[in-house]
Amino acid sequence: MKASETAIVMIEFQNEFCKEGGRLYDVVKSELARQNTLANAVKLQREARAKGCLIVMVPFVFDEEYAGFWKPEGIVGNAASSGAFRPGAWGTEIIDELKPAAGDVAVHGKATLCGFNGTNLEMILRGAGIRNCVLSGFLTNVCVESTARTAYDKGYRVIIAKDACAALSQEQQEYPEKCIFPLLGSVMTVSEALANMEAEPSRAKPKAA
Amino acid sequence: MKASETAIVMIEFQNEFCKEGGRLYDVVKSELARQNTLANAVKLQREARAKGCLIVMVPFVFDEEYAGFWKPEGIVGNAASSGAFRPGAWGTEIIDELKPAAGDVAVHGKATLCGFNGTNLEMILRGAGIRNCVLSGFLTNVCVESTARTAYDKGYRVIIAKDACAALSQEQQEYPEKCIFPLLGSVMTVSEALANMEAEPSRAKPKAA
Amino acid sequence: MKASETAIVMIEFQNEFCKEGGRLYDVVKSELARQNTLANAVKLQREARAKGCLIVMVPFVFDEEYAGFWKPEGIVGNAASSGAFRPGAWGTEIIDELKPAAGDVAVHGKATLCGFNGTNLEMILRGAGIRNCVLSGFLTNVCVESTARTAYDKGYRVIIAKDACAALSQEQQEYPEKCIFPLLGSVMTVSEALANMEAEPSRAKPKAA
Amino acid sequence: MKASETAIVMIEFQNEFCKEGGRLYDVVKSELARQNTLANAVKLQREARAKGCLIVMVPFVFDEEYAGFWKPEGIVGNAASSGAFRPGAWGTEIIDELKPAAGDVAVHGKATLCGFNGTNLEMILRGAGIRNCVLSGFLTNVCVESTARTAYDKGYRVIIAKDACAALSQEQQEYPEKCIFPLLGSVMTVSEALANMEAEPSRAKPKAA
Repeated sequence: MKASETAIVMIEFQNEFCKEGGRLYDVVKSELARQNTLANAVKLQREARAKGCLIVMVPFVFDEEYAGFWKPEGIVGNAASSGAFRPGAWGTEIIDELKPAAGDVAVHGKATLCGFNGTNLEMILRGAGIRNCVLSGFLTNVCVESTARTAYDKGYRVIIAKDACAALSQEQQEYPEKCIFPLLGSVMTVSEALANMEAEPSRAKPKAA
Repeated sequence: MKASETAIVMIEFQNEFCKEGGRLYDVVKSELARQNTLANAVKLQREARAKGCLIVMVPFVFDEEYAGFWKPEGIVGNAASSGAFRPGAWGTEIIDELKPAAGDVAVHGKATLCGFNGTNLEMILRGAGIRNCVLSGFLTNVCVESTARTAYDKGYRVIIAKDACAALSQEQQEYPEKCIFPLLGSVMTVSEALANMEAEPSRAKPKAA
Repeated sequence: MKASETAIVMIEFQNEFCKEGGRLYDVVKSELARQNTLANAVKLQREARAKGCLIVMVPFVFDEEYAGFWKPEGIVGNAASSGAFRPGAWGTEIIDELKPAAGDVAVHGKATLCGFNGTNLEMILRGAGIRNCVLSGFLTNVCVESTARTAYDKGYRVIIAKDACAALSQEQQEYPEKCIFPLLGSVMTVSEALANMEAEPSRAKPKAA
Repeated sequence: MKASETAIVMIEFQNEFCKEGGRLYDVVKSELARQNTLANAVKLQREARAKGCLIVMVPFVFDEEYAGFWKPEGIVGNAASSGAFRPGAWGTEIIDELKPAAGDVAVHGKATLCGFNGTNLEMILRGAGIRNCVLSGFLTNVCVESTARTAYDKGYRVIIAKDACAALSQEQQEYPEKCIFPLLGSVMTVSEALANMEAEPSRAKPKAA
């Protein structure tokens, strides 16, 4: 993989999931510990950025403004009624360790499972000439998997950075690693993914950088 | 569920999967037998049509015409290189027991996992005023699940008709039934889904009918 | 049109276009005056909101963060290189007269011509059960028209509120009014559009309201 | 433009528009004659194919199967109720002079204005690694323009082959040539477009070729 054609897609690394006091922290904390997810994510972001990959943060935000008329069923409905992921709230912020740096981008509009649905993710990937998506984040078998399935269907090469993900349980982490992701592309550790990336530090940086 | 707002979305009920001699029959035949998938699908199609639901057949077709330049990785690449699902071939035909009748529709363009990707499925559902999608077909945890995830993200109410589906194994059937589909909507048997449908035989029929 | 099924889609009512000092004000100011666009837009927003329509503001924002690697040709490229529509800038703000009130929504992600491309507009319309789109804003024959064409193709009923729009010239305003919009739906004045709306003040309001 | 990254997108070159007896022939025949559209389209298809461009035919088809429940307003509704573009009908066939050859592709599912909406056009372009879209066909200011606007928003480089198009009148041909297409990309004659294409006869050909 050439770094200049590779995006590190980091899904929902927000306080809500990652930090004591986040509304969804309790349901993932044992897997965060078992996988060492946050340290791996930090390593992935920092080293991939240095190699010239595009870093794409994909936060979930459930706007108060449409919380009044849109009543989704299922898991998004549960998240909405829990009060999680409200705009401007602490829980919705990307965690300090992974805050976007100059040249990184953050996707707007994710309010369902797939990171492409209702967002500018595709425009960002296309604008930057990306062909490879390295996926990480929460939950492995829900939003990460939905985004991976769509990325595959859109023709991107899909790599799952498995130890920078977390699910509700080891079983829910391992089922897609074994049965789904190999149908779409590759499953790697963060170290393996980084080792497969050809550095190209010449990526055009934003004017602001 | 009102029948007039309900589509029965039947994914890849083609000879390739369903019939002796189909290129993918061997991998699903034990689950077809265990679940009695085809008989349940026939019952679902016939009784839902009689109640006034829209029947939407979603075949997979891998056009020779782009087989030359498009080389997908993963499961679609495997299907493509196996020679399955070629246009006009016997294996690609919808099985005789489920051939579309007047008033049913067939989706064009499915060549990846999700039935919405690159197809007219959404246009059909929207044109017909559909709010509920009852999903069935192959493979439970691959194309059926990708289509279910997207339908959910698009705001449709999702119902999985579990015994009109098949996967490669009982484990791969039961994992999404237990861990994924309940996040998106409901899992029902064909009989339960039919019992939940309010008949409305007044659906406008095509002029040709 | 029932107000509960109607969205007032207001495209790029930002200082950049509407106010002395905006980077694009000079190119539209004669048409703003001829059409009395801003006063009409204010009347449309206020009276449609009172009747129970959904107010949807659609600002254009050209993120610095991808201005470094995405170099669009054509009109968006020109806007980008002019420095217009940068996040947080005064020019990018929605004008004071039309600031969203409780219950209104603002679309995220518009960075090209069509308001649906790369944004959460469709998710908002679908979530709110909208069937009719009343379109207004800038430029009549560019972003308003692209959004109208897509809304039509997606099956929405399209109404152009012609005197709440502006183009670069009277000719460019009148050509689509005469040759394009009638192929898609209806062309009305703000007063006519309001007269056609059936009030339904019972629209569920957001919790915050 | 490298030929290997260029698609010749040919919209609705069907008997309905192009031939005596077609339901829509009368409305375009004077512009067909004035522009010499068909001879130019034949030259474009033949010479671009020889240089290694991808030829993409985009026919409109209005399925009887959903003609019963989908009642679009506007121009598509008019086309539908006229009986034009029915599947299998002579009027719907691509004209003999432009029939796809081995290696060419035909898009499925176009039933609205934009060639990307509800079709596999994007999958085809992406699968083939296309960056430049040379657009031609009917009507210049309706379906060709809607497809051009979307192609632009998706990040393709847009070239209009103006003398391989036709509209209802010279005015409707010239307005978008002057006011819209230059915002999106380039307007060229067929000869100019061909002169700008760098031949690369090495395009991978389908197995069938």
